[in-house]
Amino acid sequence: MTRSIEIVEVGPRDGLQNDPVLMPTELKIEFVERLIAAGVKRMEAASFVHPKLVPAMADSDDVMARVPRVDGVRYIGLALNERGMRRALDSGCDEVNFVMVASEGFGKRNQNATPEETADLFDRIAVLAHDDKVPVSVTISVAFGDPFDGEVPVDTVAMLAGRAANAGAMEIALGDTIGVANPWDVRQRIDAVRDAAPDARLRMHFHNTRNTALANVFAAVEAGVDVIDASVGGIGGCPFAPAATGNVATEDVVYMLERGGFDTGLDLDKLIETAKWLESEGLKHPVESMLSKAGGFPS
Amino acid sequence: MTRSIEIVEVGPRDGLQNDPVLMPTELKIEFVERLIAAGVKRMEAASFVHPKLVPAMADSDDVMARVPRVDGVRYIGLALNERGMRRALDSGCDEVNFVMVASEGFGKRNQNATPEETADLFDRIAVLAHDDKVPVSVTISVAFGDPFDGEVPVDTVAMLAGRAANAGAMEIALGDTIGVANPWDVRQRIDAVRDAAPDARLRMHFHNTRNTALANVFAAVEAGVDVIDASVGGIGGCPFAPAATGNVATEDVVYMLERGGFDTGLDLDKLIETAKWLESEGLKHPVESMLSKAGGFPS
Repeated sequence: MTRSIEIVEVGPRDGLQNDPVLMPTELKIEFVERLIAAGVKRMEAASFVHPKLVPAMADSDDVMARVPRVDGVRYIGLALNERGMRRALDSGCDEVNFVMVASEGFGKRNQNATPEETADLFDRIAVLAHDDKVPVSVTISVAFGDPFDGEVPVDTVAMLAGRAANAGAMEIALGDTIGVANPWDVRQRIDAVRDAAPDARLRMHFHNTRNTALANVFAAVEAGVDVIDASVGGIGGCPFAPAATGNVATEDVVYMLERGGFDTGLDLDKLIETAKWLESEGLKHPVESMLSKAGGFPS
Repeated sequence: MTRSIEIVEVGPRDGLQNDPVLMPTELKIEFVERLIAAGVKRMEAASFVHPKLVPAMADSDDVMARVPRVDGVRYIGLALNERGMRRALDSGCDEVNFVMVASEGFGKRNQNATPEETADLFDRIAVLAHDDKVPVSVTISVAFGDPFDGEVPVDTVAMLAGRAANAGAMEIALGDTIGVANPWDVRQRIDAVRDAAPDARLRMHFHNTRNTALANVFAAVEAGVDVIDASVGGIGGCPFAPAATGNVATEDVVYMLERGGFDTGLDLDKLIETAKWLESEGLKHPVESMLSKAGGFPS
């Protein structure tokens, strides 16, 4: 039987959040519609943070009010605090994603919190989602390295995973926010997280800053992980992570997995079309993905 | 004990061969010197094919006459036929690399030969290298897919590997000439080649055309392969392989392997310097590698 891998499309949130171009709401809706046409069933579509800090997400309430409601398509909203969690729930997100941070250097600059403080905060606000019966997941950011502190102890990542699971996270993601991970370390950290949170469903969030993202996806899938974040075109980055250019591209992930015999449920040609639409209309600048340049396997 | 992975630097041959810029001999020698300073011990430096077909390699005899002869540094010359083999041996190459082709579509266009014909040819000319006591290796090109024929049967690759081993190849490389390989297929083809040529030392040659090269390196290293081709900057391509843009970049491979706990003997900073020298002086155009943009792990 063909094994299925779920790709969570993060282009409309993590992708657009850090793009130099502010995409108008109208085009964001078109972007989401194109993703659905390509088979996307689960996507990050909004971020409920302060609009002054992330201007590209200032229209998140409006986006959530206008996205098409299609059977089987789920929208994830990002929240970093209680106010964001409340807004995400009120806006009709199908899921909320909360971010814990695995290192102090990044944590202080990104959300003014230490790793422990982000875990404490999740304890307090996860209950809001539970009260509303909305699933909540946790992404552990800079889980493979911090732009300011360098090495991130695997024990910190495991501790946060354990706390996320205890507080009721339905899924835990390890985020390589600045694109430093290598596949051997991916395997090691997955093992450590499994020890700390044996029942948690795992998701991986890789950036391709140092070209290792697909190697990391391969290592994660080999380690049994079934859920992978990616953005069409490989758009995105991180304002607090110097040179952190881009999520791994959805079409590149899909090419590798489908050629490797996995089912992603996504249409490679339509993903490539969407990447080209980003280049010509959505963002009007080149994107990083390779499949959008090279095309699929020759036939 | 730390496991060592040997990186064969192919920039001066496979890299330059397909670059739009014809690098003058003087700069090629500087390129080679910079590579040696970065720790490179084994590199493709010349190609003995017809200068009308590959103008960038027309000065190969001259290059071989002028490269620094340093203890422990070995130069590989490429040969596709008897005349090329003779020239490579006469020019003082420390090794010769011969190319078999795994598919007819590419074979007919690249060297006007079927897979079997390339194996027959190797039978005849390997003896020239043996007579001169020069090691000869074989690269099986388009071993993961052909730009014209599409799928390449694993049996053809295994057959060629068996014939290469029988004719005395001291090493067999699987070449993903057009960058279509995926890591699961890498593992499968390595297994098949091991069955057909149990004593052969294996080398892998990946292009990053579809972003999978480092995943393929990881799969190969996990499967026990100890020798990887790469080019500084990720320069290179293939004139008969549409959109085949670039070998996997040496500095990207070195980053992943060294972070994964392996020893490559190469100096990442000096490799990045050399990539930047290619951009500013050697080729005067941007190169594809990611490490040369992002830098190493933050410290």
